Amino acid sequence: MMENNKDFEPLKGLIAATFTPFDQDGQLNLDPVPRIVEHHAKCSINALFINGTTGEGPSLTEEERIIVADSYAKEAKAHSIKTIIHVGHESLQTAGSLATHAADIGADCISAVPTSYFKPSSLNGLIDHLAAITSHAPEIPFYYYHIPRMNSVEFDMLELLKAAEKDLPSLVGIKYSATELSTFVECKKYKDGKYNMLYGADEMLLAGLAMGADGAVGSTYNFLAPLYNKIISEFESGKRESAQMYQAKSAELIRAIISTAGMPGLKVAMAIAGFDCGPHRLPLKTPSPGIVDELRNRLESAGFLEWNVPEDE
Amino acid sequence: MMENNKDFEPLKGLIAATFTPFDQDGQLNLDPVPRIVEHHAKCSINALFINGTTGEGPSLTEEERIIVADSYAKEAKAHSIKTIIHVGHESLQTAGSLATHAADIGADCISAVPTSYFKPSSLNGLIDHLAAITSHAPEIPFYYYHIPRMNSVEFDMLELLKAAEKDLPSLVGIKYSATELSTFVECKKYKDGKYNMLYGADEMLLAGLAMGADGAVGSTYNFLAPLYNKIISEFESGKRESAQMYQAKSAELIRAIISTAGMPGLKVAMAIAGFDCGPHRLPLKTPSPGIVDELRNRLESAGFLEWNVPEDE
Amino acid sequence: MMENNKDFEPLKGLIAATFTPFDQDGQLNLDPVPRIVEHHAKCSINALFINGTTGEGPSLTEEERIIVADSYAKEAKAHSIKTIIHVGHESLQTAGSLATHAADIGADCISAVPTSYFKPSSLNGLIDHLAAITSHAPEIPFYYYHIPRMNSVEFDMLELLKAAEKDLPSLVGIKYSATELSTFVECKKYKDGKYNMLYGADEMLLAGLAMGADGAVGSTYNFLAPLYNKIISEFESGKRESAQMYQAKSAELIRAIISTAGMPGLKVAMAIAGFDCGPHRLPLKTPSPGIVDELRNRLESAGFLEWNVPEDE
Amino acid sequence: MMENNKDFEPLKGLIAATFTPFDQDGQLNLDPVPRIVEHHAKCSINALFINGTTGEGPSLTEEERIIVADSYAKEAKAHSIKTIIHVGHESLQTAGSLATHAADIGADCISAVPTSYFKPSSLNGLIDHLAAITSHAPEIPFYYYHIPRMNSVEFDMLELLKAAEKDLPSLVGIKYSATELSTFVECKKYKDGKYNMLYGADEMLLAGLAMGADGAVGSTYNFLAPLYNKIISEFESGKRESAQMYQAKSAELIRAIISTAGMPGLKVAMAIAGFDCGPHRLPLKTPSPGIVDELRNRLESAGFLEWNVPEDE
Repeated sequence: MMENNKDFEPLKGLIAATFTPFDQDGQLNLDPVPRIVEHHAKCSINALFINGTTGEGPSLTEEERIIVADSYAKEAKAHSIKTIIHVGHESLQTAGSLATHAADIGADCISAVPTSYFKPSSLNGLIDHLAAITSHAPEIPFYYYHIPRMNSVEFDMLELLKAAEKDLPSLVGIKYSATELSTFVECKKYKDGKYNMLYGADEMLLAGLAMGADGAVGSTYNFLAPLYNKIISEFESGKRESAQMYQAKSAELIRAIISTAGMPGLKVAMAIAGFDCGPHRLPLKTPSPGIVDELRNRLESAGFLEWNVPEDE
Repeated sequence: MMENNKDFEPLKGLIAATFTPFDQDGQLNLDPVPRIVEHHAKCSINALFINGTTGEGPSLTEEERIIVADSYAKEAKAHSIKTIIHVGHESLQTAGSLATHAADIGADCISAVPTSYFKPSSLNGLIDHLAAITSHAPEIPFYYYHIPRMNSVEFDMLELLKAAEKDLPSLVGIKYSATELSTFVECKKYKDGKYNMLYGADEMLLAGLAMGADGAVGSTYNFLAPLYNKIISEFESGKRESAQMYQAKSAELIRAIISTAGMPGLKVAMAIAGFDCGPHRLPLKTPSPGIVDELRNRLESAGFLEWNVPEDE
Repeated sequence: MMENNKDFEPLKGLIAATFTPFDQDGQLNLDPVPRIVEHHAKCSINALFINGTTGEGPSLTEEERIIVADSYAKEAKAHSIKTIIHVGHESLQTAGSLATHAADIGADCISAVPTSYFKPSSLNGLIDHLAAITSHAPEIPFYYYHIPRMNSVEFDMLELLKAAEKDLPSLVGIKYSATELSTFVECKKYKDGKYNMLYGADEMLLAGLAMGADGAVGSTYNFLAPLYNKIISEFESGKRESAQMYQAKSAELIRAIISTAGMPGLKVAMAIAGFDCGPHRLPLKTPSPGIVDELRNRLESAGFLEWNVPEDE
Repeated sequence: MMENNKDFEPLKGLIAATFTPFDQDGQLNLDPVPRIVEHHAKCSINALFINGTTGEGPSLTEEERIIVADSYAKEAKAHSIKTIIHVGHESLQTAGSLATHAADIGADCISAVPTSYFKPSSLNGLIDHLAAITSHAPEIPFYYYHIPRMNSVEFDMLELLKAAEKDLPSLVGIKYSATELSTFVECKKYKDGKYNMLYGADEMLLAGLAMGADGAVGSTYNFLAPLYNKIISEFESGKRESAQMYQAKSAELIRAIISTAGMPGLKVAMAIAGFDCGPHRLPLKTPSPGIVDELRNRLESAGFLEWNVPEDE
């Protein structure tokens, strides 16, 4: 069994939360995957987060999740990009099977969101629940996926780290998709930075970096990585106003996407950037052609297309 | 394809939301099912609601849901009890497969809760989503499962009926597990009572009856049916104060269960009533022996045991 | 000091939550009050609830609340209608002054909603808070005003009764404006009906009656009392279907009001019924003439005008 | 009437949200005010935010708010510290009177939280509501007070700036007490930084600075200003890790305060720092002596006392 963090190399920089491509009938169509991951590689994406929220993981069957994980993991390996496979599921038995599969295919890490219909009712309950998943793949580094706006599960992440140290030996960090960052900086400073803190709100990346984020997981890193690489470099070289300007641009583009088309707008933006991943699975609704056009216009006039292309192209 | 409600015989009276029995290792153990359903039959239970919230449906794998549905449906048939199989799932593909299976085994009805991680974002989205499920079993009467306290999905049920009339031909009614009853009475009166309204808050059954409930689905009907049969008979014979007294007793017992052990207390109460269904699946936590003892004491001193036994025993 | 409930005559039947009339400049205009209360008397309204939510109490200055209370209380007395004066205020000092004033003018009862910016953080905190108000008028029967949808203050009302028995001697009951009715029936049955339970959701009155409501406080009792008197009489004579039909009509009319104009639609409906109370105070917005016309049309075509007139006119 | 921002000198750096001192009977006791403001001056506090959340503004009567504003404003002037007087009130008439008073005493700025019992139901409604207040003091720069966790009023602040530009001419900025910072950076960049953005989450100050905060308003700036001055100076000189370390210390101390005593712990901390401001007003409960001792111990062992003293003492 893994001992916390030993020999674990923390993830850094941008981590793309991958989309799951479908054909027009709503069936998996993995043809675009190689080109997408090649693009990731050119854009300095360090890792992929597969089958999560962006990837419509909960809308896939168990079999489909395995197929998608296989496909992205294979391409990632070819480009020396690391992989985090999301295995959270309402049925912890299924989550455990997905964790086993992740181990079998040599994924670098796994992650899980807690159940959202029945919610863990205490921190201990959460840990039991996570341990029931990680026990199926004890050697693989595990990230807890904290995303209270989606599932209303909101435990104190610092308390999780303290409790998990003993009871969840494979925990190496948190994919922290919340705007509350005071706990985030406490988590980062806990035990001299023992845990790998990945920030999950693209539109607030700069705030996450300021509060100690090691890396960042997000959907817009698929198609706007050059913009975020700018935020990171300006941040690191102390150009505060310039970093804010780029972050404001990111916020403006995300606002255009979400206010026009809701969360499904992200897949539309991916298509506008040149990587068509097809429609959504219900319950997410594929935006109508009219909405797509409107979003294209808003994004183009906001300079979206300038930020899709790798820096050296 | 089913045309709304034609030849459909509305459900009435008490409908038990069944527990899923596990062994001490957390694996399915269906041995108690025949005795439980025999008890249902003696207690004038008219139908079973299988694999829903009480049955920990979301915590089961697809295969397990099929096995549980088979088991309860077979026993129900033997006692001329009707069946509603809950097929809701985060993956609508899986939900569709479960609906097909329900049709294959001759279930009387199906029902589905909407997805809770990705939530339908509009009434139209909800209907598309439900249609994607019911299209797999268009001949089977379908009940929408409205339970906003669990999934925060809260559409106007009268608007659902109006819209579904055209776009969801197999919809026959609603399992309405909410305390807001003004919409409920409007739904009941809509089109001269065309839709079958099943109320889902046991502790408020009397209020549901007053507002027009045809029947009621609940977990405590497994072990307190005689008490609820009293509420119904007193209500029907106009004995208002007496009906309130019995309803207050139900509320008191449910308060004891929930305040001592949370939702898992319901399975404990089932065991105290003589039908041991084993532990819970995580993320629900099986109460500790100390909690079980405390709950037993509270229930016994509140007269719980008097209300478990069929009237004629 | 009042001992709980001794010599207190419980309120029954319909209690109108009064509107506060303004002139076109938004200043108090109490001219319509006598005619309104005369109408109340003709419609068998038993008591008035003054300066509450319907009366825009929080939007009034302390001086204005005193003037409005004086005006309605005077007219009520002339018609032998009882009065409950709402004295809740973000400043408990001001709430106490308003309670003293209510005592000074011989109000029958007082009531208070808890503070909504700073919320009481425990049941004990709530009781201290209420005691700080009632200590200014210990002889006057006090109703706690439970309306969690407005202030998100949601304590267990049965626990309040148990704790208040010792620490809040003037508490005589609850104005219970919530849809959760299992606690309501428990409160009603507590100590053999010692507490006076007033239900506060007009669109669910029938459910409240079934669960033991002694009386009901609401805004639509100002202009639809004949409809609600029908619900009560049908309920009492055991005509269940007919009671439901009238309740569905109430729900339909309230749905028309709220969906067209939001809460301000209630004052518009009062004007349509013949009692113009002028505009709203901000933050509530007075509906535009277009909205008013639309609401008038919807209400008229739903039969609203038939239900405004006292039965014997 | 003020034209947006013209001649307005934006506020910068730390702004203390003042406590309101009471005596043991809960009456105003302004004796500590001069010493507190002298301390503010020594700690480089640039402005005071008076009668807001920390100052228990909503729990004061109108007369008391005037007295407190007079007292702090007089001392502030003596130390060349600017003043923002919070005038928000459930009654907009009272809010207007408080704004007039602020103008009369020469306050530098005013601010208002929207009403929390009746909430503005649209952005237009919010602006009408704010205009009804600012019209009483049109010459004074106005800050909107955005604090959704207290009042659940959550409008898009960028949309407010856009709409307010025409309809709220005295608006100069936002006191932004929310964790969502993507809108914050957009607001800061809007019209080349036209609006003065003050951040209101002390435990996330560093994130606020990174996203463009001009200044920061908070309660802990009363007693931990030297710690925050460190965060600011390290941030400005690009010492990222060190800034995070100080921010984590702030988060740790605030966690100790809130988890031990809730929001009332802030006044206890002020007393521990040497500035006893007496008990709280209900509905906030003054912590028991046992809680005070526990909090003192936790704070002392976390190094609280090192950070209370001005740098040059």
